[in-house]
Amino acid sequence: MDYQAILNVIEKELENFHPGGKVPDYIPELSSVSPDKFGMHLYGISGGHYCFGDSEEKFSIQSISKVFTLALAKKIGKKIWRRVDVEPSGDPFNSLTQLEKEKGIPRNPFINAGSLVVADILITHLENPKKDLLDFVRLITNDQSIEYDFAVAASEKKHGYRNIALVNYMKALGNIDNDVDEILDFYFHQCSISMSTKQLAKAFMIFANEGRILETNERVLKPNSVKRINAIMQTCGFYDEAGEFSFRVGLPGKSGVGGGIVALHPQQYSVAVWSPLLNEKGNSEKGMRALEELTTLTGLSIF
Amino acid sequence: MDYQAILNVIEKELENFHPGGKVPDYIPELSSVSPDKFGMHLYGISGGHYCFGDSEEKFSIQSISKVFTLALAKKIGKKIWRRVDVEPSGDPFNSLTQLEKEKGIPRNPFINAGSLVVADILITHLENPKKDLLDFVRLITNDQSIEYDFAVAASEKKHGYRNIALVNYMKALGNIDNDVDEILDFYFHQCSISMSTKQLAKAFMIFANEGRILETNERVLKPNSVKRINAIMQTCGFYDEAGEFSFRVGLPGKSGVGGGIVALHPQQYSVAVWSPLLNEKGNSEKGMRALEELTTLTGLSIF
Amino acid sequence: MDYQAILNVIEKELENFHPGGKVPDYIPELSSVSPDKFGMHLYGISGGHYCFGDSEEKFSIQSISKVFTLALAKKIGKKIWRRVDVEPSGDPFNSLTQLEKEKGIPRNPFINAGSLVVADILITHLENPKKDLLDFVRLITNDQSIEYDFAVAASEKKHGYRNIALVNYMKALGNIDNDVDEILDFYFHQCSISMSTKQLAKAFMIFANEGRILETNERVLKPNSVKRINAIMQTCGFYDEAGEFSFRVGLPGKSGVGGGIVALHPQQYSVAVWSPLLNEKGNSEKGMRALEELTTLTGLSIF
Amino acid sequence: MDYQAILNVIEKELENFHPGGKVPDYIPELSSVSPDKFGMHLYGISGGHYCFGDSEEKFSIQSISKVFTLALAKKIGKKIWRRVDVEPSGDPFNSLTQLEKEKGIPRNPFINAGSLVVADILITHLENPKKDLLDFVRLITNDQSIEYDFAVAASEKKHGYRNIALVNYMKALGNIDNDVDEILDFYFHQCSISMSTKQLAKAFMIFANEGRILETNERVLKPNSVKRINAIMQTCGFYDEAGEFSFRVGLPGKSGVGGGIVALHPQQYSVAVWSPLLNEKGNSEKGMRALEELTTLTGLSIF
Repeated sequence: MDYQAILNVIEKELENFHPGGKVPDYIPELSSVSPDKFGMHLYGISGGHYCFGDSEEKFSIQSISKVFTLALAKKIGKKIWRRVDVEPSGDPFNSLTQLEKEKGIPRNPFINAGSLVVADILITHLENPKKDLLDFVRLITNDQSIEYDFAVAASEKKHGYRNIALVNYMKALGNIDNDVDEILDFYFHQCSISMSTKQLAKAFMIFANEGRILETNERVLKPNSVKRINAIMQTCGFYDEAGEFSFRVGLPGKSGVGGGIVALHPQQYSVAVWSPLLNEKGNSEKGMRALEELTTLTGLSIF
Repeated sequence: MDYQAILNVIEKELENFHPGGKVPDYIPELSSVSPDKFGMHLYGISGGHYCFGDSEEKFSIQSISKVFTLALAKKIGKKIWRRVDVEPSGDPFNSLTQLEKEKGIPRNPFINAGSLVVADILITHLENPKKDLLDFVRLITNDQSIEYDFAVAASEKKHGYRNIALVNYMKALGNIDNDVDEILDFYFHQCSISMSTKQLAKAFMIFANEGRILETNERVLKPNSVKRINAIMQTCGFYDEAGEFSFRVGLPGKSGVGGGIVALHPQQYSVAVWSPLLNEKGNSEKGMRALEELTTLTGLSIF
Repeated sequence: MDYQAILNVIEKELENFHPGGKVPDYIPELSSVSPDKFGMHLYGISGGHYCFGDSEEKFSIQSISKVFTLALAKKIGKKIWRRVDVEPSGDPFNSLTQLEKEKGIPRNPFINAGSLVVADILITHLENPKKDLLDFVRLITNDQSIEYDFAVAASEKKHGYRNIALVNYMKALGNIDNDVDEILDFYFHQCSISMSTKQLAKAFMIFANEGRILETNERVLKPNSVKRINAIMQTCGFYDEAGEFSFRVGLPGKSGVGGGIVALHPQQYSVAVWSPLLNEKGNSEKGMRALEELTTLTGLSIF
Repeated sequence: MDYQAILNVIEKELENFHPGGKVPDYIPELSSVSPDKFGMHLYGISGGHYCFGDSEEKFSIQSISKVFTLALAKKIGKKIWRRVDVEPSGDPFNSLTQLEKEKGIPRNPFINAGSLVVADILITHLENPKKDLLDFVRLITNDQSIEYDFAVAASEKKHGYRNIALVNYMKALGNIDNDVDEILDFYFHQCSISMSTKQLAKAFMIFANEGRILETNERVLKPNSVKRINAIMQTCGFYDEAGEFSFRVGLPGKSGVGGGIVALHPQQYSVAVWSPLLNEKGNSEKGMRALEELTTLTGLSIF
């Protein structure tokens, strides 16, 4: 069965699967998205594109952006592991308890606190961090149309009390160098990037392809950095449901509260899926099911 | 470079690596082991055996046994996921805090609390749980010489206050069915099993070979169970250093305080290493280095 | 208004107050007590006795015994403050989290963990700890009829998994010297002592009378020890409801899950009340109301 | 021995007591204070004033102000106990862990989070909260010279990351109504108030005198409110050293990181002491010693 046939099976099987979760309600831009949206895009290492549904519709990538900022920090060669750990958190993505216990060192770069520290590092080392991040995402996607959604960024800033708390708390504990408002501005923008599953699958191909852009063969990350980022996606990519995802899907990946999930099988493919309804852990329920079917039907997980 | 050449390089490179850790001192049987012991054994899916050093000397497998009991529970088809979760813990292997927070449901089957619940399940469903476990380990290793070390089991029982605390606490919270003393007796015995790296590599081949014993082709676990156990080894196999191991080595694996580590690359090989000095997280420091070298030199991690 | 008149008002006012709590159900001896029992006894420093209701019926004093063992430890002059702290806990009476965080040092002698350490100290220093405790309680009450309830002690032992967990955990952390079973046996016996509100009020007069038995003028505690014990009752006597009791009643006191509460006003009186229905914090709801009325009507709290 | 004689003894005894603590270093206004300052002032209910040392030198009252804002909230008759609890915290004064566990409800009004909620309540109900607070403090002290120290307030704002974190976190959890910047501005000002031990002793006389200003007999608080505030000072006035203070001193009181401590004996006296060196819990070490001597020498604690 080829990839397109497998995707067709998945689409068919999940046609009548209506998960019981909900769309996030904290900002109007996310709560107004139709819960019925569903799309999937797989990008094979041989260059093929396979898809169904709303695979070319853009949505807010939210926490998926944390992989981009981590990759950018590695690309510019910055040491980050003294300031962010690489262990799974065992706590929700925005917990302050663990930060307190561990004296301001976030457990990993994919919880909010960790990504705020990565933002701090980028701001220290880049001239135009917001522009540079966008350029990096456009580069690896080979698509100049990708943009921030300024309305989303503005809404997040208005309701981002918990992230404001996190960054100020780390500042109090000595793990933040730059101005907290500048970091928050960067962070709310990174989360607001709009991309389709097709664009996400293309962007994440660098992690399946040892750090090279498939179309151009340009190297953007060292193989060793890719191995590390994939390992962190495997153990930390799904908040406190990382084990469940690893258990059900068996691929490194990352989710966002916009309903997107990206995953990849090294040397085989990258894949993105979108369905806005979230389970109580904040991950797209239908998206997880789709990826579970994918590794079952291909018979290929990393395990 | 073939596997034996790679192992020779690792042996050579680590000849003068003397990690600063220490041998566990809580029972005489573990504390009296020479800290200089060092051995490694790799078992290829094509049937080849490669090794160096003290690879055939037996040592106490300790927490590595948790993989065997989990596999046995899956083999006899028992549901365990309502009573043990599959998430990384973010806390040390014997923490009571998380148990309290999560009302007696251990985070995963590889922390002590989780393995005690697995022991409880085996005791409920097996006639002779200690005999049956030993038979299972002998079966997958194809080696009838494997035994419990009764002196180790007795010493552990004498000093096992923390495990006694864990099982009584879960009993108080309603997640233990059987008599606590019977569970502890089983648990201290499972940890006391003595095996060499050669025997461990042979035993773990079932996880690299989709659930079949390589020599006999006998199926002992369903492929789906293997995938799940491997996923849990990936995210939870190294206490609160699972992320670090995933990051440095990139293979599913499991460590024990006896200084052993087992890991595997699906469809490629299983491998065990032994060096008694532990880092502060309780994992063999030299063992981790050896495995890190292995995936660097083979160029093959799962990522 | 004299004390008897005030007690009459309290009895009348609470006649139709039926709190919504429940009797503890973990052992038959406590769950079979009638929830309608209600009695109160006040013992004035001038020697007068005032009471109503079931004031002479014995019940299980449970955690009230923690004050007796602490007093006995101080009486025999033992240092305890390196092994037990004197701070309120902010957590339920049987929490393990705080113990883990604070490396086996209980927050205060009135949480279970703290009282188990006090038991350990008494066992180290007394020839016949169970007999000596009973003798001490009989002495200060001037009543030889006080006894352990062996059926209660046996039941508690049978269901005492959480206390077994606590003492083993502290043993693991190095804060327990004696055999855990001996400590638990002592602890379950101390909790099983049966006393009436009249006997309790008599016993606690030593804390209102600077350490002397009122009837005989015999000194059993130094004034400084009394001051300390009263201070601990004030801040730690009601599990994680100490602040609420201090706020509503304004007297040092101690409650037990048998439904009893004892309190005292230094230089004025000691008082005990009994009503078996407990609120969700484990304190007698009607007992707290009765004491609140008492300090309102007398116009005398310590504040 | 009269009060002045007792104070003279205390001054003499502590002349050569040089505690090993340190002056807070987070803002220049506090770190530049001479560590040798030492003064004490006792105000008797009969109207007498007794003092020694630097008793009329003003210093930053810091957390002592939390009692004033709580009193003002009670004075204007506002309900606060649904939004702030009255239990001791068992955690440091600025912990976020407990807030997370208890869903944004601070444990009591004397930890920072609790006082920020009290500030929020005052801002909701007062026209000019900063002016009204100052007027209230001037009223109960009968001293129009009391002022905010704007330099201190500005410095605190500049370094107040942890308080910014706390208020934003509670806002995220729904327990803050007003603009966070307005609350922080008020809070940093309340902490900046400068007062001498003489002024503090005068101000706190209302809590020893059932809510009336001693000099004018004007009632500013109901007796019941006074009883409650005293009870909270007793159980929560010294961060996670409340038990230790209760144990050593036996009076309701409140400390501040400016080195001041105020305490009171109902119907007897109010007293303030100032010595800038803080122990590791953030309380004035020499101040605690002075008060311990006071209750030992007077033979009068509330216990």
